[in-house]
Amino acid sequence: MPLNPDAVGATSQPGRRSWTSKDALLYALGVGAGTDDLPFTTENTQNVAQQVLPTMAVVLGAGDRGLWEHVGDINWTMLLHGEQAVEQHAPIPVEGEIESVTTITGIYDKGSGALLTTETRSVDTATGEPLFTTRSGAFIRGEGGWGGDRGPSRPAHVPADSAVYHTVVYETRPEQALLYRLSGDRNPLHSDPSFASAAGFDRPILHGLCTYGFTGRALLQSLCDGDPARFGSMDARFSAPVWPGDTLTVSIWETGEGEAFFQTKRDDGTVVIDGGRCTFR
Amino acid sequence: MPLNPDAVGATSQPGRRSWTSKDALLYALGVGAGTDDLPFTTENTQNVAQQVLPTMAVVLGAGDRGLWEHVGDINWTMLLHGEQAVEQHAPIPVEGEIESVTTITGIYDKGSGALLTTETRSVDTATGEPLFTTRSGAFIRGEGGWGGDRGPSRPAHVPADSAVYHTVVYETRPEQALLYRLSGDRNPLHSDPSFASAAGFDRPILHGLCTYGFTGRALLQSLCDGDPARFGSMDARFSAPVWPGDTLTVSIWETGEGEAFFQTKRDDGTVVIDGGRCTFR
Repeated sequence: MPLNPDAVGATSQPGRRSWTSKDALLYALGVGAGTDDLPFTTENTQNVAQQVLPTMAVVLGAGDRGLWEHVGDINWTMLLHGEQAVEQHAPIPVEGEIESVTTITGIYDKGSGALLTTETRSVDTATGEPLFTTRSGAFIRGEGGWGGDRGPSRPAHVPADSAVYHTVVYETRPEQALLYRLSGDRNPLHSDPSFASAAGFDRPILHGLCTYGFTGRALLQSLCDGDPARFGSMDARFSAPVWPGDTLTVSIWETGEGEAFFQTKRDDGTVVIDGGRCTFR
Repeated sequence: MPLNPDAVGATSQPGRRSWTSKDALLYALGVGAGTDDLPFTTENTQNVAQQVLPTMAVVLGAGDRGLWEHVGDINWTMLLHGEQAVEQHAPIPVEGEIESVTTITGIYDKGSGALLTTETRSVDTATGEPLFTTRSGAFIRGEGGWGGDRGPSRPAHVPADSAVYHTVVYETRPEQALLYRLSGDRNPLHSDPSFASAAGFDRPILHGLCTYGFTGRALLQSLCDGDPARFGSMDARFSAPVWPGDTLTVSIWETGEGEAFFQTKRDDGTVVIDGGRCTFR
């Protein structure tokens, strides 16, 4: 069934979501933070105030899939998470509540499939101020070819030769997806061997947003001295799967002016997060 | 201030505690379960029903410290967890609620300190049936020497030569305590380097009950074919600290008649859980 391009502009009802200090600790452990990251993994360490990883926005502002009924009868098994952006307007409180509204911002015809883009704006209900905005792109295989707009191309974000370069290597754990999924995404593609096999993978794959969280930690460490208040935004495309236990290598090129480009590779050198751009203060 | 031996027999008010499937998954990950333990670490794997590790009883039936006011003004920094037993009357449901009553069962004069023993009986409020009984012994340094009863000696549980022998080796993770503490015990001795240093340790130590949970997994695997319904009880003494990242070696000697003795060693061969006895079906 073809998608309905006129669904662009459709907006969800406002939805509220709250979180606790424990949720923030669990998220941090889920994206590989540990004993070197006590502000993110503990709440009662002497002279250390608990803080929240900026990428937790992708969990808290996950958007409302009910909105997608406007788009058509989507076959979820054909959907791939294609791209994800986080824009942090203020550091995420250790506990709090947001009110989020999601808008369908684009339905593009990519030939082999459709790209559906959404934006979720989340406001801190305690202050009434915007807390973060998340933008997500879902690629729906088999739904392209209706002669629609291909949409804008993503900039390549190729680093200049003169850029300051950082590289950060993180090991993921064999049980990483089992831990990450407790932050919300229980899709068995990430835990059930038989489900993963039916989807064409030799074993369960890591959540793309888990790899995204590891990558965000590398950006925070390399560019912001670990301080979430200095983090501005990150935007990147998912280009290949990661398996739990893989080693992730994050390459970061500073371009000057509080901007950096980045990409993340898995063990075998395949780029898994590509065309990344980050802003920081 | 001396302890009050007449507090023996004091009983807490009944207290209720509920838990969710997510709590059980988090506990299992906290004691090292992973991709080989999907009944304990996932809730939606095809043809796999979620189950609960029997040792989760020590978290759920943790008892009421308010009761200890009867005993005297305890200096908590002088307290060591000395021994722990779990008796499972029925497999722990994936989610549920218990009502627990704790009784002070002994206050013994061990010379250099006092041993305070408690028993907590927990009933499943859904069925009214006993679910598990936990017994705990706390050693309070510096509170002995009042000429009181030394109490019974623990049996040595020395294995017979003819026993069937099992050995299970588990690696703990550097961040193991950070994960385990999300199941309830937030004592900074297990996470804050400065707090641990003040307590005389070079770095934070693993929760004794985390090591206990790893040990319980080894018993379940070796003696019960991974089936919690076959688990009866376990009882052991804590004899030395473990550091997150240590490798644990659990030695198990079957004595016949559904009984086994066990002990757990850390990297350097030091026995950390000693004099263990387990029953199973």
